Amino acid sequence: MSKSSVPTSVVKLLERWFHLSPNVSAAPQRMFQSLGEEMPQSTKTAIMIIGGAEDKVHGREILHSFFIRSGSTDARIAIIPSASREPAVIGERYREIFTEMGAKGIEILDIRDRDQCEDPLLQSYVENCTGVFMTGGDQLRLCGLLADTSLMSKVRYRAQRGEITLAGTSAGAAVMGHYMIAGGGSGESPNRSLVDITTGLGIIPELLVDQHFHNRNRMARLMSAIAAHFDRLGVGIDEDTCAVFEGDGLLQVMGKGTVTIIDPAGVIHTNHSCIGATDPLSIGNLRVHLLVHGDQFDLRKRLPILKQSS
Amino acid sequence: MSKSSVPTSVVKLLERWFHLSPNVSAAPQRMFQSLGEEMPQSTKTAIMIIGGAEDKVHGREILHSFFIRSGSTDARIAIIPSASREPAVIGERYREIFTEMGAKGIEILDIRDRDQCEDPLLQSYVENCTGVFMTGGDQLRLCGLLADTSLMSKVRYRAQRGEITLAGTSAGAAVMGHYMIAGGGSGESPNRSLVDITTGLGIIPELLVDQHFHNRNRMARLMSAIAAHFDRLGVGIDEDTCAVFEGDGLLQVMGKGTVTIIDPAGVIHTNHSCIGATDPLSIGNLRVHLLVHGDQFDLRKRLPILKQSS
Repeated sequence: MSKSSVPTSVVKLLERWFHLSPNVSAAPQRMFQSLGEEMPQSTKTAIMIIGGAEDKVHGREILHSFFIRSGSTDARIAIIPSASREPAVIGERYREIFTEMGAKGIEILDIRDRDQCEDPLLQSYVENCTGVFMTGGDQLRLCGLLADTSLMSKVRYRAQRGEITLAGTSAGAAVMGHYMIAGGGSGESPNRSLVDITTGLGIIPELLVDQHFHNRNRMARLMSAIAAHFDRLGVGIDEDTCAVFEGDGLLQVMGKGTVTIIDPAGVIHTNHSCIGATDPLSIGNLRVHLLVHGDQFDLRKRLPILKQSS
Repeated sequence: MSKSSVPTSVVKLLERWFHLSPNVSAAPQRMFQSLGEEMPQSTKTAIMIIGGAEDKVHGREILHSFFIRSGSTDARIAIIPSASREPAVIGERYREIFTEMGAKGIEILDIRDRDQCEDPLLQSYVENCTGVFMTGGDQLRLCGLLADTSLMSKVRYRAQRGEITLAGTSAGAAVMGHYMIAGGGSGESPNRSLVDITTGLGIIPELLVDQHFHNRNRMARLMSAIAAHFDRLGVGIDEDTCAVFEGDGLLQVMGKGTVTIIDPAGVIHTNHSCIGATDPLSIGNLRVHLLVHGDQFDLRKRLPILKQSS
C-alpha cells in the first residue's frame, strides 16, 4: 500500500502510533511480579492462547508478556473486543492495562458488523500494529464477525509469519484452531453430544483448544471433541495460564495453572462412528500431558519437555 | 472350622442359607433388561467395582450380574452396609432387591463397631456366603470399621481366590485398592491438595479407584492421586457402570457409562516431589483409555481391547 493511497485519517493514526500515548508517563508503571520463577523476558513475537481470567490487577504476568512481545514501549496494539456483548467496556479495560504498561499506541477495533472488516482504517490498523489482542466473550459471535474477512486474513497471515504477537483469551482462545469448541457440558461420561464443534479462525489449525479448562471441568468435553478429530492436538488451558507459540515448533507454558495436552496420535480404537449421540465414547490409547509454567511441548515430535522432574 | 465348634445360631443360619428365602416366589421376578447389547450371562465369580448410583429399579443390570455371579437362586449374599450412616435402611433396600431376584439367603452384616468383626456368627456368614456386597456411604467409615479385621481378611482372601463374588459400589468401590481416595475437589488444576489419599482394603491392591467419575468431574483428582503413586493403575468408574475382574487378568466393563483407565507406566517426568501442596502438577506421558460396555482392559499388558472400532 503506497502512502498516497492511504486516507488522511490513517496517516494520522500511523503518526499517533509512532508517538507515546499522551496519558502514559515517561516511566510506565511496571506491575509485573514473577511467580517465583524467572521472569519471562522474551521479546519474540508469538501466538499466545490464554485460558481466560488472566490476572489483570497484580502481576499481570501474561498480559505483560504480550506487551513485551508486542514491542514494549514501542508496541502498537489492536484490541478486538468483538466476542463480548459489552465490547466498549472490555476494550477500554484492556486499553487501560496496556496504556499503564506503556504501549506506544492502542486502538480498540470495535467491530460489530462484518462490513467494518473492509474499512481501510481498520485494515491499516492491523497492517501496521505490532500486537493484536482478542478478548473473551462468545466465540461464535467472534467468528461470526471475523471469519473469512480480509481483516482476519491479514491478522492471521501476520501472526503466522511472526510479524506480530497475537493473543486471545477465553473466547479469543477458543477460536485459534481450524475446529472450534463452541460450547458443551460437563458432569457426564464423554459422549458426542457433550460438545458442540464448529469452525474457528484457523490461526494454528492443528490445535483443538479448550479454555477455563480444569476450572470448569472440561476434560470430558475436550476428549469428546478430540474423538471426532484424531488429526488434531487437544490443548486445554486453565485460567490465568497461557500456551505460547513462537513459531519454533514448541509450545511454552506460562501462568499459574496447567496446559493439558490430549494427543490422539496413538489412538487405534474408538466407537465414535458406531454410536448414538449420547452413548458413551470409548477411546483406546490417548496420551495426556499436564504441563506447568516453564514446561514445553515439542509439537513435531509430540513430546513434553518438563522443567522439573522426579 | 469343624461343625462341632459352631454355635447353634450359625448352624441355623447355614440351614437357612441352603433353603429358599420364604418371601421369594418359586419363579423369581427377573427385571433384567439388556442395554441393547447381549445379556451378560457369566456365572463366574468376580470382583465388581461399581461407580455408584447403579440402577436399582429398571434393568438392574449390574446388580443382576452380581446376583448371577453369586450363584443365582443358590446365592447366599452378605450385605455390608457399614459405609452408610443409615445402614439398616440401605441394607434393607439391597436385601429387597436380591430377594426379588431370588437369592436363596441374604444377611445384612450391620457392623457398627470393630468388635463385631470378631463375632463368630458374622465370621461364619462370610465363610459360607457366595457373594458379598458393600454399599455406598463414607469410605473412611467403612475402612475404619473393617480394615485389618479377621472378617475383612476372610472376605478378601475368598474374593481373591475366586470363591465368592465381591461387589462394592461408590464408597464400597473406593476401598478396593491398597491406596484409597478418601475425598477431594474439582474445578482446579491438578494439584496435590486436590485429593486426600489414605489406605483402603486392598482387595485389588494395584488399583487406585475413583467413582461417580465423570459424573462428578473427578479426572483432575484421580490424575492428582496417580501422580503420587505411579506404581498403581488409576481406574475412574462412572455411575451405573462397573469394572468386573474375573481373576483372568482382564478388566471388563459393563453398564451405561465409561471406565477411565489412567496408566502412568510410561511417565518419566513429574514435578510432584518438587512443588507445594497447591501448586499445579506436571506429568508427562500419561496413557488414558475410555472404555465402555463390552470393552476390556488387559491388566498385564496394559492394553485396551475395544469391542467396536473405527
